[in-house]
Amino acid sequence: MKNSLILYSGGMDSTVLLYHKREEIALAVSFNYGSKHNDREFYYAALNTKKLGIEHVKLDLSDIIGKHFSSHLLKTGSEIPDGHYQEPIMKQTVVPFRNGIMLSIAVGLAESKGLKQIYLANHFGDHAIYPDCTSAFIEPFKEAAKAGTYEKIEIVSPYVSITKRDIALIGKDLDVPFKYTWSCYKGKEHHCGKCGTCVERKEALEGFDETVYT
Amino acid sequence: MKNSLILYSGGMDSTVLLYHKREEIALAVSFNYGSKHNDREFYYAALNTKKLGIEHVKLDLSDIIGKHFSSHLLKTGSEIPDGHYQEPIMKQTVVPFRNGIMLSIAVGLAESKGLKQIYLANHFGDHAIYPDCTSAFIEPFKEAAKAGTYEKIEIVSPYVSITKRDIALIGKDLDVPFKYTWSCYKGKEHHCGKCGTCVERKEALEGFDETVYT
Repeated sequence: MKNSLILYSGGMDSTVLLYHKREEIALAVSFNYGSKHNDREFYYAALNTKKLGIEHVKLDLSDIIGKHFSSHLLKTGSEIPDGHYQEPIMKQTVVPFRNGIMLSIAVGLAESKGLKQIYLANHFGDHAIYPDCTSAFIEPFKEAAKAGTYEKIEIVSPYVSITKRDIALIGKDLDVPFKYTWSCYKGKEHHCGKCGTCVERKEALEGFDETVYT
Repeated sequence: MKNSLILYSGGMDSTVLLYHKREEIALAVSFNYGSKHNDREFYYAALNTKKLGIEHVKLDLSDIIGKHFSSHLLKTGSEIPDGHYQEPIMKQTVVPFRNGIMLSIAVGLAESKGLKQIYLANHFGDHAIYPDCTSAFIEPFKEAAKAGTYEKIEIVSPYVSITKRDIALIGKDLDVPFKYTWSCYKGKEHHCGKCGTCVERKEALEGFDETVYT
């Protein structure tokens, strides 16, 4: 039954989830929040949703987050640091409460459209530097979403206890076209291969066809 | 110490809270979400923050909520019903998860700006028809906000257990200029006196100078 919405960036995790739950997903929602890589992500998000015949909307928070928040991930921030994605320096790329903001809008949108649940592809490896990816955040937020809506909207994060590598392997089984997903925070023509998210992507896709991270 | 942000609509409850906690408030945040009365609210919100010398920003969600959500409160919705504010018909004016959305953005903004707490003027009487004003919503949401930020942002709702009448009496003690606050959902030149929020305003301000609701 198609009664779900997915927070869909166009990155590898949410693309695997999109393919994984395609039979249940009525609406994929992407956000432009003024990051350096939103346009590249969105290009692939549009491509995959079109391929699967899933309705896709892009919501624009660039005037709010892009102009009023501080993060090197944003166009208004400094350069993206290179390094391992779990290093403290990567904290500079955190957009404060981004998941909370995107989830809240998704909850309201789901209630408006009669959808019952929201898929989120947060995973175990996110926990090190993103406070709004931890279970300590997501569990009470789920409760708030349920209590704060007439339809008792559910937030479902099936990958919260597994690693990005595990997600990659699920994607492989599902024939997810990883080369049509985007990770690099720098948002240039090709993946840089050096920033935290590129390092993480390479580690997760090790042994796969190399074209997936160029 | 000025380390707080307030969700400030320009209505009577949040205006009382603005005056009540003026020594602590560094930033007042108003949202345009495409409602019929946002412009009228904002006019008074700007006036009161200017008078108190508090920084005020207006964030625009009208392209997201105004265009994609369903509610009679919105410009895109049907006419505002008349009646008592606790009647089931008033559910038509609920904007799904509005408090969750505004709070989430406020949490991210507070973390970006080094502020430590967020004031919210939700009160006991809101509970009847707004699921995202109940303690069942706000308590887990507070927990999520704390867990989802490095600075452990606190959400404080001092009026959650008192009525709108109680708030009006606090405001009277503080000399809050109620005639420079806005309630009416219809958003015309004057308060209509008939919609749910006008009825509620009149009940709360009974015995006050009549100019406060015309």
